[in-house]
Formats: sequence, structure tokens, C-alpha cells
Amino acid sequence: MTSLRIRFAAEQDVSLVLAFIRKLAEYEKLSHDVVVDEESLRASLFGATPAAEVLLAFIGDEPAGFAVYFRNFSTFLGRPGIYLEDLFVEPGLRGKGIGTALLVHLAKVCVERGYGRLNWAVLDWNQTAIDFYKRMGAVLLDQWTICRVSGHALKRLAERNVISSVTL
Amino acid sequence: MTSLRIRFAAEQDVSLVLAFIRKLAEYEKLSHDVVVDEESLRASLFGATPAAEVLLAFIGDEPAGFAVYFRNFSTFLGRPGIYLEDLFVEPGLRGKGIGTALLVHLAKVCVERGYGRLNWAVLDWNQTAIDFYKRMGAVLLDQWTICRVSGHALKRLAERNVISSVTL
Repeated sequence: MTSLRIRFAAEQDVSLVLAFIRKLAEYEKLSHDVVVDEESLRASLFGATPAAEVLLAFIGDEPAGFAVYFRNFSTFLGRPGIYLEDLFVEPGLRGKGIGTALLVHLAKVCVERGYGRLNWAVLDWNQTAIDFYKRMGAVLLDQWTICRVSGHALKRLAERNVISSVTL
Repeated sequence: MTSLRIRFAAEQDVSLVLAFIRKLAEYEKLSHDVVVDEESLRASLFGATPAAEVLLAFIGDEPAGFAVYFRNFSTFLGRPGIYLEDLFVEPGLRGKGIGTALLVHLAKVCVERGYGRLNWAVLDWNQTAIDFYKRMGAVLLDQWTICRVSGHALKRLAERNVISSVTL
């Protein structure tokens, strides 16, 4: 038996975090969307105002998986929560409880901070993940769809002419 | 013609923000999920580490709508973005461009801060909103489903026994 250890990532872990991000994108068939590099990741995670936190799981000294998350906010609860952006376990190490351990660790962070909920998104075709999340107590919010404006569309939206007065 | 003005909410606007949250919940048929009160909202929005920002729209001196949002983070972009939690325009003032003005204002905030994208979620039955968002340049991420653990399920997850070692 080799011990499982979970800890927060520090600045010296940036290249490991980047490697996990790329492995997750490959698994999700979304590698074409990945433009992050070590410099931008370091600035975002370990700069003056960190945009996210990272948990790392190790089996002995071997990196086994990670979770990237940030604080969100529910107006209905009037309380912050956590949004889990990425969760990944090395394919060769799945089915051993490492993903569960990461998710439970994150739920503990939520509860300790007095947060109200833990959200994330799953790809519809990833039935293995969906089944796992349901076993963890997750509800799937089927009636909601995520919208996104990014890249050129975001710039165009920002430059759109808007009204300055209204006829009542 | 009466002028349209958009500004950031300040602490003295808490009761107005709360009123908008409740009106939005009513419109979304989700009033049963609303437990926020003025105290928790004030602490979350105007405490030491604000969990979200709020934009308010006024027609003359009349409150017309609001947007609540917070910073999120894309690991694939390696950059922060904005997640729009709530967007609401008074029903009697719709179709005049106030929602567009709020969304454009928010896109400007994104671009000015060097953020990569603007995300939000829409209810599947709200075709008026979906059509509006598509006109604004939004893409609907149909292949993703939001998962959530909250309340008792979150506490149970946090208390779950996890492995402390792994057989390789």
C-alpha cells in the first residue's frame, strides 16, 4: 500500500498543474481549446490576486490527479460557493478512490469556509463521470444551459452601440 | 426621452439588489430556493473580500435592472473571465435595450480587465432570453451539464470516509 496525500499546489508546482490541464483537455477531446502556458498560469494562480486554487493528489511521491476551483456566489443563498473547474485523475490510477478523495477534500473546504454549494460541469457523453458524480450526491441541473461569449465575439459585444436614453 | 445610467452598486444599494434578486427568482419560478437576506447579502458583497460585483441600471432615477457577476477562471485559456450569475430587467421596461446595455457594459469590463470570456447559464424554457443571448453573440454549450452538491448532500460528502493509501 502506498499513501495518498492531498495538498494545495504552490508556485513550484506550476509545470505539474499545466501538465494535468493538458491531459484533461486531451481526455475531453478539447486540446484545440488549450492556449494556456506556464507564464499565464503562474500569473493567474500565484500572482497578487489568485484567480483559482489547486489541490494536488499524490500516491507516494507520484502525482496522481488535481482539482482546480475558485469561489463563486449564489444570490439566492446569499453565500459564496465553490466552482470546480477541473478534476482529473491519471487514467492508470482510476477506480482507486483518488477522485472521490479530491472531491471529498473540496467539499470539506466548502463546509469549513461556510460556503453553500459546490458546482461543476460535466460533458454529456462522459457517462463514467456522470455516474461517479451522482454517487457523490450531485444533482444534475438539466434545465440549465451554459452560454458563452469569448474571443472576437466578446470584443464585438463590448464595442456594440447601446442606447443612452429610453422613451417611457 | 429619459437617460439610461449604469453604475456599480454600493453598500447603500443592498436593499435594491435584494429586491431585484427576489424579482428574478419569481420570474424564474425559483422563489422557493431564495434564502438570502439583507445581512448575508451585505456581508458577501461589501465585506472584506467581496464575493461578487453588481451593476445597476437606472432610467432617470428609477431602478430598471441589475447584473450580478464574479470572476471565474479558465484553465484552458490560463486567464480569468466573468461569470454572470444574475441579469434582470423590470418586466415593464423590457424591449428597450436595457438588458443589452447591461451585457455590453459587462463585456467592456471583461475586455478592460484582460479577461478571456463571459459565461452564464440560461433556463431551457426561457426562449426569449436564449434568442436575446444568441443575438448578443453567445454560443450555447449544449454538451455540458451543470452538477451541484449543496445543503445536506454537501455535508454528507464532506464527511465521507476516503482511502488513505492505494495499492498500485
